[in-house]
Amino acid sequence: MKVGLLGCGTVGSGVVRLLTHNAEQLEARIGARVEIHRVLVRNPNRPRPEECRRSWITTDPEAVLGDPEIDLIVEVMGGEQPTKGYLERAMTAGKGVVSANKLLLAKYGPALLEMAARHSVDLAFEAAVGGGIPVIRTLREALTGDSVVSVHGILNGTCNYILTRMRNEGASFGAVLADAQKLGYAEANPSMDVDGHDAAQKLVVLSMLAFGAAVDVDSVPVEGIREVDDVDFRFASRFDFNIKHLAIGRLKGDALELRVHPTMVPTSSVLANINDVLNGVYLQGRALGPCLLVGKGAGELPTAVSVVSDLVDVARDRLAQVSGLATRSIHPRPRRIVPMDELETRYYLRFDVADDPGVLGHIASALGAQGVSVEQMVQDGRAVTRDAAVPILIISHRCREGAVRAAAQAVGKAPFLKRPPRYMRIEEI
Amino acid sequence: MKVGLLGCGTVGSGVVRLLTHNAEQLEARIGARVEIHRVLVRNPNRPRPEECRRSWITTDPEAVLGDPEIDLIVEVMGGEQPTKGYLERAMTAGKGVVSANKLLLAKYGPALLEMAARHSVDLAFEAAVGGGIPVIRTLREALTGDSVVSVHGILNGTCNYILTRMRNEGASFGAVLADAQKLGYAEANPSMDVDGHDAAQKLVVLSMLAFGAAVDVDSVPVEGIREVDDVDFRFASRFDFNIKHLAIGRLKGDALELRVHPTMVPTSSVLANINDVLNGVYLQGRALGPCLLVGKGAGELPTAVSVVSDLVDVARDRLAQVSGLATRSIHPRPRRIVPMDELETRYYLRFDVADDPGVLGHIASALGAQGVSVEQMVQDGRAVTRDAAVPILIISHRCREGAVRAAAQAVGKAPFLKRPPRYMRIEEI
Repeated sequence: MKVGLLGCGTVGSGVVRLLTHNAEQLEARIGARVEIHRVLVRNPNRPRPEECRRSWITTDPEAVLGDPEIDLIVEVMGGEQPTKGYLERAMTAGKGVVSANKLLLAKYGPALLEMAARHSVDLAFEAAVGGGIPVIRTLREALTGDSVVSVHGILNGTCNYILTRMRNEGASFGAVLADAQKLGYAEANPSMDVDGHDAAQKLVVLSMLAFGAAVDVDSVPVEGIREVDDVDFRFASRFDFNIKHLAIGRLKGDALELRVHPTMVPTSSVLANINDVLNGVYLQGRALGPCLLVGKGAGELPTAVSVVSDLVDVARDRLAQVSGLATRSIHPRPRRIVPMDELETRYYLRFDVADDPGVLGHIASALGAQGVSVEQMVQDGRAVTRDAAVPILIISHRCREGAVRAAAQAVGKAPFLKRPPRYMRIEEI
Repeated sequence: MKVGLLGCGTVGSGVVRLLTHNAEQLEARIGARVEIHRVLVRNPNRPRPEECRRSWITTDPEAVLGDPEIDLIVEVMGGEQPTKGYLERAMTAGKGVVSANKLLLAKYGPALLEMAARHSVDLAFEAAVGGGIPVIRTLREALTGDSVVSVHGILNGTCNYILTRMRNEGASFGAVLADAQKLGYAEANPSMDVDGHDAAQKLVVLSMLAFGAAVDVDSVPVEGIREVDDVDFRFASRFDFNIKHLAIGRLKGDALELRVHPTMVPTSSVLANINDVLNGVYLQGRALGPCLLVGKGAGELPTAVSVVSDLVDVARDRLAQVSGLATRSIHPRPRRIVPMDELETRYYLRFDVADDPGVLGHIASALGAQGVSVEQMVQDGRAVTRDAAVPILIISHRCREGAVRAAAQAVGKAPFLKRPPRYMRIEEI
């Protein structure tokens, strides 16, 4: 069984290493020898791992995609084009495909799956979400006899790392981001990560499997972590909450709640304690109940482990001549996404106000006028100077987000307000 | 594809329900219809779920095992005999087998796998460990390209429930056990659970896959939770530890550290926060790094989900005529188990002593004489009356368990000791 590798960067190098060092183990599991035959790279002169033979290297896509000897394509080059065209070419030529490309799967997942089914080939993508965590496998296989009610994910390691340090050190977003960039935990251009786009793409891929949903990634409400204020960690812990950047998907009748944002979660919740660069996915199955998977969300070897486990499946299906069965059983279809104003949950609100009599009453009235019912209200100390702001913290009962937004806007106009009001969704998990 | 179900109790009923209500979904995934054909029960007059047709029910094992129309056997009857004979008969007859029987797998796993390989049939047993948690699947498939370094499991829901309540309520083992029995969380005869045997069996099954180890379950050092003292939770939290009943497996060269006992784990560890009846398995893969799986360890539907996911795999392999491949790739072989006296870890020790001058010095000397180095030593308050005991708490550096045992025995003879000394292993995860 011959493999064509597209890309030989971080993850690709890991794949080359694992395939080389575990060759016997893999042969026993698959029932045939799996060998790398060609490796497509952009720059043939860049150093490669020593396990990567020079004779494999090519810069010509057709030398890989057009080689009839190659049975399986492993795509770890990333990006949208020309990668998408390569995968289509491979599937049209009847090759099984393993991809780690979350962008492609998020944007074109349903079309790619449909193409795979039409050409009776497998398309596996465990490594596209959650690195080494077997979440796609769990969704696809273990839940075959079940249906998924909700998915909560910590899907971006950079966000989780930054929030963990903000909490532990009481440091600001900007300070931790700068340090994370120095340490290599955040990119020079961190927008994909800290603005939530990476997590949104992964959520769309998960929703395709969990809910059979074909979702336009641009239609997912997304908030990043730039606006998370370090003081909110302190206030959150007063109410026994921690702040995590969550990607949330939940069945709501025929519609879908789908959203990515910083979230207050109870400190006793399993997700509250997944820290640093770890990723976590918490599934609720109708029959299965809760199931949490935690592990490394990125990195050469963890991600390569997922790629290789896919490769085993695809190779076995191919040997058994049942390729395409797995892809044919997924039929994503469009779903209405619940608009954020219709969302119903509990909220944390913070108003930084002048320490004047009557302010609390004013805020309580504004919330009440919108039907936002207050569960707890705390004024954090007294202002030291006349001009200083004092925070008023509120935990609401369950209510509609539209009402919370309107109430915050109404209070936002009051003269006693020192800064724009802030609110954050609470998730009971 | 016709299924013979052995047993129709709690899990069996769940399997009947899932197969009935997800028939279309399963057919799409497998590529063939899967139907129950016969259900073997002991008592034909006991009430069954309404989805279970009367015509399926039989009390004659041969009506199931000897029926050539039946392709797959699902064993959810439990017990050692006659169950083992039934499975052997089924495999000899070329039927694929799904079993939820941890006792059989722990005692005869290698022999059963060998038999499955010889007859080219699948033998799947996801439900034998961790109920709805896909841990066997993860070990077998996702780690094909990797090797497992260690496994830490909270594998018994009853133990975890009792320890969680002891910690939260400051209650004693006896009081919580009695209440757990009333509530149905513990059996009338709780020994299998609270004495650690259930967890030990599951650990042996996990070790077979994780380390390729053929282990006699009676050779695994096992301690239950009866001896866990409620005061130790309070002292543990002073050092930022929680107490969990862990099953631990770890590669040590060619030997295997394998043990089941109450363990101090840092409160910040992911395992410390898995509470109530939840189970959790924490794997360390050489390439994968850490991977944690958490979910319901028991219950009708969670366990049935695992059974059905196995059934899907076995049915697909059968259709593809690749049955036996999965079982043939596991070759468990005997491994030396590290004796507890050779174990090296950190320890928590508690000495309840008379509040006399010189006692601390005596204890410190006894520890030092055995080469047990003290990291922290705390005397918890002063004795209120002359006769009252005051606890001295010690956290050791890494040392050999034999040394700790010898030191505790030496101190145990001292006249100032009010109760036998206690020690507990610390695990840094």
